[in-house]
Amino acid sequence: MRQSELVYKTYKDWPKDEESKNAGLLIKAGYIEKVSAGIYNILPLGWKVVNKISQIVREELNKIGAQELLLTNLHPKEFWEATGRWESFDALFKTKSRLEKEYALAPTHEEIIFPLMKKIIQSYKDLPKAVYQIHIKFRDELRAKAGILRTREFLMKDLYSFHKDEEDLKRYKELVDQTYLKIFERCGLRAILTKASGGTFSSFSTEFQVPTPAGEDNIFVCYQCNLGYNEEIFSGEKCEKCGSDLEKIKASEVGNTFELSLKFSEAFDLTFLDKDGQRKFVNAGCYGIGITRVFGVIVEVWASEKYLLWPYSVSPFDYHILVLRQEENYLREAENIAKIFEEKGKEVLIDDRREINAGEKLVESDLIGIPVKIILGEKLKDGKIEIVDRIKRKNYEIEKDHLIHFISTHE
Amino acid sequence: MRQSELVYKTYKDWPKDEESKNAGLLIKAGYIEKVSAGIYNILPLGWKVVNKISQIVREELNKIGAQELLLTNLHPKEFWEATGRWESFDALFKTKSRLEKEYALAPTHEEIIFPLMKKIIQSYKDLPKAVYQIHIKFRDELRAKAGILRTREFLMKDLYSFHKDEEDLKRYKELVDQTYLKIFERCGLRAILTKASGGTFSSFSTEFQVPTPAGEDNIFVCYQCNLGYNEEIFSGEKCEKCGSDLEKIKASEVGNTFELSLKFSEAFDLTFLDKDGQRKFVNAGCYGIGITRVFGVIVEVWASEKYLLWPYSVSPFDYHILVLRQEENYLREAENIAKIFEEKGKEVLIDDRREINAGEKLVESDLIGIPVKIILGEKLKDGKIEIVDRIKRKNYEIEKDHLIHFISTHE
Repeated sequence: MRQSELVYKTYKDWPKDEESKNAGLLIKAGYIEKVSAGIYNILPLGWKVVNKISQIVREELNKIGAQELLLTNLHPKEFWEATGRWESFDALFKTKSRLEKEYALAPTHEEIIFPLMKKIIQSYKDLPKAVYQIHIKFRDELRAKAGILRTREFLMKDLYSFHKDEEDLKRYKELVDQTYLKIFERCGLRAILTKASGGTFSSFSTEFQVPTPAGEDNIFVCYQCNLGYNEEIFSGEKCEKCGSDLEKIKASEVGNTFELSLKFSEAFDLTFLDKDGQRKFVNAGCYGIGITRVFGVIVEVWASEKYLLWPYSVSPFDYHILVLRQEENYLREAENIAKIFEEKGKEVLIDDRREINAGEKLVESDLIGIPVKIILGEKLKDGKIEIVDRIKRKNYEIEKDHLIHFISTHE
Repeated sequence: MRQSELVYKTYKDWPKDEESKNAGLLIKAGYIEKVSAGIYNILPLGWKVVNKISQIVREELNKIGAQELLLTNLHPKEFWEATGRWESFDALFKTKSRLEKEYALAPTHEEIIFPLMKKIIQSYKDLPKAVYQIHIKFRDELRAKAGILRTREFLMKDLYSFHKDEEDLKRYKELVDQTYLKIFERCGLRAILTKASGGTFSSFSTEFQVPTPAGEDNIFVCYQCNLGYNEEIFSGEKCEKCGSDLEKIKASEVGNTFELSLKFSEAFDLTFLDKDGQRKFVNAGCYGIGITRVFGVIVEVWASEKYLLWPYSVSPFDYHILVLRQEENYLREAENIAKIFEEKGKEVLIDDRREINAGEKLVESDLIGIPVKIILGEKLKDGKIEIVDRIKRKNYEIEKDHLIHFISTHE
């Protein structure tokens, strides 16, 4: 794609009213736009990153037999009264129709998925089952100051699983925990599996915490075991598992997994007929990943104070070709290179703008943060191209004719 | 995928409280679930169809230079007051935060996209631009009786384009109109380009109407020109273009295209600096496709009273393999066939269930509506497989070893 056609705008100054590094940089680089406190639009550059994160999540969840669907975000009041959360869930946005029917705007989907699964699950033969969606959620946050880490509307992946007994639920939760570690690693994040309280959902939970000063949680970490303990539930100084000293750090929660056990099954009478002819409640689990939060945490972890930098796996484009001279053949060369890469399934952004000078292009490219730059400058006269890999922190000068081979064998 | 693992449930009886053919059949066949009047969940089978429709839309819009993004659905009240629609838009759902801030739940996104583009468009060099999203919308409908054709929450593709003058806007709208015809054709629908009024958006509009008795609109059609006139704005008996007799039919609107011209640009002061140094208002267009409505209209047009049938292009699976006997080697054979197709990028559903008899499997397969069935029954003993193509209305009996070649050359 030609940068002159891309719908974006970068800014020289830090956006006013934006304290957080993640939203500040993403606005500055044209990835998101702030609508009002805690509410953002995701622009084409940002949407490409979000989709790459979502795609990684989908691939890994499909591997463990979860099936994608889409649940409504308008939840009739009576569903939330059934669990007592119509009154007790503080951050619940509510709306009322012209016909005076009241709805909750979904902050989570237990109230919808349990009545749905009640229609599908009848016997032990219908278990286990796991379904997920990647969809927006709404939360009426009192304060929104962490950029896109805590917003009033956000994208979330929520997975729900249903089992014949507690043992099978524990087996699947373990599988999801391992899958989550893989997902975050593929997104360029080292997440620490952290023991925490269960909030309104269950008695305890597992959080996936990424160390970052921007985090809202304090956790005690054992780097030996790669295990964490949320300070909410823990105050010791030694790892429960290996006895090593723990370090207290700030971290941001990118995912969580809960054993709901029978809690919602009892509220919605979700039962099945077991092999032995007995009617039993279904054991259930729920598992979240904050997709837009992952987007923001990647910025917190990977970017400098001034410039974004994306892991190869979620970068909006694979290569950023900078055309630093005005002569026609430079742009033609860029288009040729892009075409070859695009045929290999790679995405390329070409800075083709004529009114922007070389220095500005280089700085803006750093801001946008595509990890690999291909620079067509002065030296192209001698058949040379410069490649900058910002992740490996290396610059290469190579023969033009060797470019494709070089890049293909580089990663 | 094995049908024993698929999250779905079919019903023998017509769902109560469901008058419409589309929602009735989709519930019966396990594609959607009704939550309450005008509110549905989309189950895995349905979500696969919806994604195939969305993918067709994306491919065609990307070809005409439109870029995908995601806009918020929580619209601060002041944005809607700026256009006067906070009060005048009847079907607007509203919500209020704990901090007493009021929001509209997006039924459309002009109020958000214009302030956004104001930050991006400064000069004639920034034009034209086109952006779209595929996202849920909310409308507080007084009546919801057409199944998924008119719901309180629905998936929509909305595209917005921005131009230096009316001529360029008209050029792009013409391009979108032609693209829409291609999109609907790829989805198995013959849409009629229909002249209509502009509603609250503009003085006139173009609707894409699909003839069906379930439609809520009456249009006059000239089959000669493949042109329609919505009865709202027309009462003649002859085509304006060729003079032929018109036929009055019922139709359902699957898309529309509007020239907004300067309407919203004036409200949000969206201007640009032209070549001649003059500041001018941006000419804009907006263009919708009801994604979940297309899903429903395909059912209205393609299904019988009893059974679904999907066009090849949007079927949840390409092939439905029915294993009609209990012997182990039948299922093994099915898995082998599926594997070969899946390596070719095709999706296969295998009815592997042991407790269901052959007759029931055949009937349920018709209900689910995958157009091509591969039947492994009695005759497999003699090395024969039966293939049923419900679109071509043909049955084939072929040698097992010829299956892959046969299917690959069949379409």
